[in-house]
Amino acid sequence: MKVWTIVYCLRRASFNLSTVQKNCINYSHYTTNRNLYITSICYQKWGTKKKHRNVPINYLEEMADPKIEEILAPLRASVKEQGDLIRQLKANGAPDLDVKQAVAELKLRKKTLEDKELSLAPNLVTFDRAKMEDLLKRRFFYDQSFAIYGGVAGQFDFGPMGCAFKANLLQNWRQFFVLEEQMLEVDCTILTPEPVLKASGHVDRFADLMTKDVMTGECFRLDHLIKAHLEKLAADKKTSEEVKAECRDIVIKLDGMNKGEMHDIMKKFNMKSPLTGNELTEPIEFNLMFGTMIGPSGLLKGFLRPETAQGIFVNFKRLLEFNQGRLPFAAAQIGNAFRNEISPRSGLIRVREFTMAEIEHFCDPNDKRHPKFSDVKDTELLLYSACNQMDGKPAERKTIGEAVENGLVANETLGYFMARIQQFLIQSGVDPKRLRFRQHMANEMAHYAQDCWDAECLTSYGWIECVGCADRSAYDLTQHTKATGTRLAAEKKLAEPKIVDVVEAVPNKGILGKTFKKDAKCISESLAALNINEIEELEKKLGSDGSYELSVGDQKYTLSKEMVSVVRKKNTVHVEEIIPSVIEPSFGVGRVMYAIFEHNFRMRDNDEQRTYLSLPASVAPLKCSVLPLSNNVEFQSFIKQLSNDLTKVGVSHKVDDSSGSIGRRYARTDEIAIPYGITIDFDTLKEPHSATLRERDSMGQVRIPLTELSGVVHDLAYSKQTWKDIESKYPKFEQQDNKGLN
Amino acid sequence: MKVWTIVYCLRRASFNLSTVQKNCINYSHYTTNRNLYITSICYQKWGTKKKHRNVPINYLEEMADPKIEEILAPLRASVKEQGDLIRQLKANGAPDLDVKQAVAELKLRKKTLEDKELSLAPNLVTFDRAKMEDLLKRRFFYDQSFAIYGGVAGQFDFGPMGCAFKANLLQNWRQFFVLEEQMLEVDCTILTPEPVLKASGHVDRFADLMTKDVMTGECFRLDHLIKAHLEKLAADKKTSEEVKAECRDIVIKLDGMNKGEMHDIMKKFNMKSPLTGNELTEPIEFNLMFGTMIGPSGLLKGFLRPETAQGIFVNFKRLLEFNQGRLPFAAAQIGNAFRNEISPRSGLIRVREFTMAEIEHFCDPNDKRHPKFSDVKDTELLLYSACNQMDGKPAERKTIGEAVENGLVANETLGYFMARIQQFLIQSGVDPKRLRFRQHMANEMAHYAQDCWDAECLTSYGWIECVGCADRSAYDLTQHTKATGTRLAAEKKLAEPKIVDVVEAVPNKGILGKTFKKDAKCISESLAALNINEIEELEKKLGSDGSYELSVGDQKYTLSKEMVSVVRKKNTVHVEEIIPSVIEPSFGVGRVMYAIFEHNFRMRDNDEQRTYLSLPASVAPLKCSVLPLSNNVEFQSFIKQLSNDLTKVGVSHKVDDSSGSIGRRYARTDEIAIPYGITIDFDTLKEPHSATLRERDSMGQVRIPLTELSGVVHDLAYSKQTWKDIESKYPKFEQQDNKGLN
Repeated sequence: MKVWTIVYCLRRASFNLSTVQKNCINYSHYTTNRNLYITSICYQKWGTKKKHRNVPINYLEEMADPKIEEILAPLRASVKEQGDLIRQLKANGAPDLDVKQAVAELKLRKKTLEDKELSLAPNLVTFDRAKMEDLLKRRFFYDQSFAIYGGVAGQFDFGPMGCAFKANLLQNWRQFFVLEEQMLEVDCTILTPEPVLKASGHVDRFADLMTKDVMTGECFRLDHLIKAHLEKLAADKKTSEEVKAECRDIVIKLDGMNKGEMHDIMKKFNMKSPLTGNELTEPIEFNLMFGTMIGPSGLLKGFLRPETAQGIFVNFKRLLEFNQGRLPFAAAQIGNAFRNEISPRSGLIRVREFTMAEIEHFCDPNDKRHPKFSDVKDTELLLYSACNQMDGKPAERKTIGEAVENGLVANETLGYFMARIQQFLIQSGVDPKRLRFRQHMANEMAHYAQDCWDAECLTSYGWIECVGCADRSAYDLTQHTKATGTRLAAEKKLAEPKIVDVVEAVPNKGILGKTFKKDAKCISESLAALNINEIEELEKKLGSDGSYELSVGDQKYTLSKEMVSVVRKKNTVHVEEIIPSVIEPSFGVGRVMYAIFEHNFRMRDNDEQRTYLSLPASVAPLKCSVLPLSNNVEFQSFIKQLSNDLTKVGVSHKVDDSSGSIGRRYARTDEIAIPYGITIDFDTLKEPHSATLRERDSMGQVRIPLTELSGVVHDLAYSKQTWKDIESKYPKFEQQDNKGLN
Repeated sequence: MKVWTIVYCLRRASFNLSTVQKNCINYSHYTTNRNLYITSICYQKWGTKKKHRNVPINYLEEMADPKIEEILAPLRASVKEQGDLIRQLKANGAPDLDVKQAVAELKLRKKTLEDKELSLAPNLVTFDRAKMEDLLKRRFFYDQSFAIYGGVAGQFDFGPMGCAFKANLLQNWRQFFVLEEQMLEVDCTILTPEPVLKASGHVDRFADLMTKDVMTGECFRLDHLIKAHLEKLAADKKTSEEVKAECRDIVIKLDGMNKGEMHDIMKKFNMKSPLTGNELTEPIEFNLMFGTMIGPSGLLKGFLRPETAQGIFVNFKRLLEFNQGRLPFAAAQIGNAFRNEISPRSGLIRVREFTMAEIEHFCDPNDKRHPKFSDVKDTELLLYSACNQMDGKPAERKTIGEAVENGLVANETLGYFMARIQQFLIQSGVDPKRLRFRQHMANEMAHYAQDCWDAECLTSYGWIECVGCADRSAYDLTQHTKATGTRLAAEKKLAEPKIVDVVEAVPNKGILGKTFKKDAKCISESLAALNINEIEELEKKLGSDGSYELSVGDQKYTLSKEMVSVVRKKNTVHVEEIIPSVIEPSFGVGRVMYAIFEHNFRMRDNDEQRTYLSLPASVAPLKCSVLPLSNNVEFQSFIKQLSNDLTKVGVSHKVDDSSGSIGRRYARTDEIAIPYGITIDFDTLKEPHSATLRERDSMGQVRIPLTELSGVVHDLAYSKQTWKDIESKYPKFEQQDNKGLN
């Protein structure tokens, strides 16, 4: 267990132990000569509505705390014990059900450990979700869709600021991944016919179990319903100890249960609708895809895609051809996907319509090295391996080079993308201290996946998966090949040519043509398509009966020895056919945005009402504000000129000439994360014309000549210069009414 | 009628009359001292599949040709005669049906005139659609979706080049409209609940009539089916003159017919399925929206949005608030929309899933001036007014200032956007000579629209609508206000305060509270919400009965005189409520892309096989290619360095180190529209290192120091310098094997 050194807070005069006391319901702490350590369990009620769990922010160093480790030790041991049991069960070839139950128990123990860890983590400058949500809603970053019609659960509209943030994030993603890596970006349709998603497995397996109130039709996710029912029962004083134990046991095993088992539990405990007390239906498998009909006939069933990846797989042949037949290459796609969640909650985290940015990197299954791996090998990642999860150990910080070398991360390409994902997330505003990569345990991985690491961000909802990074092996291409008969494969040049035995059924085209006229061509084609068994069957029949009956579609043709002969020869081949493996980094754009919002939500010291977002300039919705000190008409021409200059260099900006003090208007621009602000004041009117430039996070100000301003803001917004560079180059600005600005 | 001066062609030695003779089946021409005029009717068979109409390209000047005007005069007169008839019918208040029939006849006459005009237009450097489609498919600009599963009509996937072109086009759109005009961009969900689209009119009216084969279920668009049947009948020699005339008459009137009338025609002519001869069903109104169910209950019906506009309208209140309550402002949205076409055809022109970029400009209905109109007023547009369409006159070139001033274009804001649309289309690659604005005639305009102009591009499919620009008045906001009770309106400050009479039902809160306890609050609120009629009713009842029964939801409360009194007073108001008008420019992104493809498809002189796309650098998928002359290992470090440099300055590029002559590789990069190409050759190895830069359209080449190259390409790609600038600054490069490059 780690605790965080509160360097940040101690540096500020305003912070002391009484701030902690004021903000936390309970806590514990200790101090060393340099630092104050908080090891508190601090929950706090915000407003009257909900209790939010606070998460640690604003720490600069971390270190192990022996006192906390002491508390956690028995929990860690309990996880390890169960992990070892599972390993042993598997080694002994124990029945599947036993393994499943043991895994469910492992998950429960892991959860207990993780909750304890989080509860012991320091929670200092507390995060207030209600306050952040108020800001995001009030300044229309995003809000519920169709609110004037009552809204729809799990759907959100991005307003001007959210939309600009999203557009910038996606533009940067394109630059960072597609352009720098020269990926092949595609843009495929959302409407997808059923056979495609049948092949991918979504039609059969992309489902959750639910049950309905027989009277009202209200739907409940079955596992949620059972869990809530049994937890309530277990908490009831009147329940016997025996039943309580049974309830707890079932809740542990719930994750591994099938439809029938869940139904039995519903019946045994006589479960009714928690809202009305009405009867419930039997469990229903509810497919999470939105269905529709394509075309007017009502015969062609289609779905809204549940992921963008399939669009890339079905275009594999064209993409390979575009890449002149060469492996490896990566394709990418940004677009919307849809999942009809039974009861969506948690804001942007679980929604029915969302934007994904996915990459499918196709490579030789026997060679997953990456040419640019050496560029990233020293990148440090916080890795939470499957093994550590089973052993109850915490995540560990390692370089990706080390992790790949010792086999923890399966291959270079997977490792390369993990490092690149981390770089992208951090440059986009994710707090590096609240980012980890968690490896899927064998039982949660899709059966075809070879290794899978999720980039998870710590938020007030706990650790949430923001980017998946999986080695999907050759699963998808193989499935679509089976379904269509179109071989989705690549040719690989052999190190040296190979000699292979070939058996062919060779038609005598002259005789075939005379005998079958225009049908001869398709007969020849059919012969060429016969496989080795069929050719041997043909050879046998020709030998025994002197003829062979060939089926072509509905037609049958009788072929004689003169018409076809079987030839055996040796061919030299220079290439072999391989089905590429796919490494897939898959970004949930809304989740990444949400994590960035949480990680960048700030309050000004001494003023809880002045909240703002410290988004990096590269993703900030607008780069700059232009504020006249007052509505003096003489300012107008300067504003117009400045606005034109900024537009010319591609700097998005907002002129705010509304009334209200300059400090108040700055507070408004801070709320929408504008990193730089220009004030036109009476000194601007004097020659040489100049204006004030202010930086959002430090609130520092400098004075810059008007002619240089748009260039300076451009360089700041696109990371060509830092604020420090600018501060050292231009005079600091201290206004007499500076207090009003802070 | 205009003919085109063939300056372009005559300037090339390769072009002469024999080229025309070779390319056209028939044509006519005449020459003047300076120019060759072609006034040909030239159709040409391409391949064996289809006859394409050729369209005029490569002309630099235009002038009226009296000979052609002579041919067209009677057709123009015929249109005008019918237009005048309609005006007269309307003036006399003739029955609706008569007007509809007259309009149908007008459309037919217009069509005859337009076809004649097009057929007389010069068709010189002929356009070959099959060749272009081959290029677009082969290099995977776009292709049919799910082709390995047999494909779906009306759905297309954009490959790497199409996707990059689209992304660049949209990025420019965002820069040109959203950033420059500081519009409020939003990103709303595609899934839309039924009540929203009920209010907008789409549930009831967004439908086409169809009929089905009763045996196979095959669907036919009814108007297409009837038209094809009757045209076939009219062409049959055995058909009597009387029936032929009837057929022609019906075809003319078809557009204005309702379901019942069409059904009568089906029965009268005993129409069967053209594919099987089976019976057909009665006409069915087929709504073009894709339906689905939101959530698991199957109770919340939703649709995939048929346009992005509604997402903006339902967010109007939030957007107005974001804009601090001020009008005018514009919102914008880029996103996908869906229309379940009965039988989609024509490639990208008519598809089931498409990207739109829409702007909704909200303004005072009584003041549609635009502050930046003066910036565009001198822009010349080719305007095809409703009046000219009725009179059989051609489109006319006018400045937008003139058009607004004389009332042809309804207002400044509409005019401003038309000019901006033209600027955007031309900078994106639309040929200005093949762009016009056609005004909707009264009968084709939505009933709520006040004026509507479509930006149409001339393609091998004829003139196609690419951008609509309509004044939608207050229709949508009014509809959503009605449906939700949420007032979607803005406040306008009055020039001077106004005194108004106010009637209020004022509760006596003390007595209400004592009598109704906690219900008192909602009673007070209900009283405040009464309208003037209800208050007068209340006053009457209190007077006559001494009490009044107030309904609040399901509850009824009896109020006495003591509890409520009616007060009349005079209030001074400073603002009035207005429902804004909406001006809507709406871009069909796929159609714009298609027009740009056609307008930029070229063949090299003397080589029909060397086709390429001359897309402007700003939208070209990749800005630059890097080609080593051979696979000499010494080139590799230079290529890597150059690739890094280009990435650093944000220039998308492609390294092509495949085998094949440099000329052949240039041809490949020309096909994918790469405007600039760098060749690394043996001279590059010498100090000071330099390389060749080639421009795609002119094929000119210059020699540039390696250190300067990425900067030069960046400036060219982002229009900071022209190719001419570069040619004048660096030495021209003439290689010995130059011929191979051309």
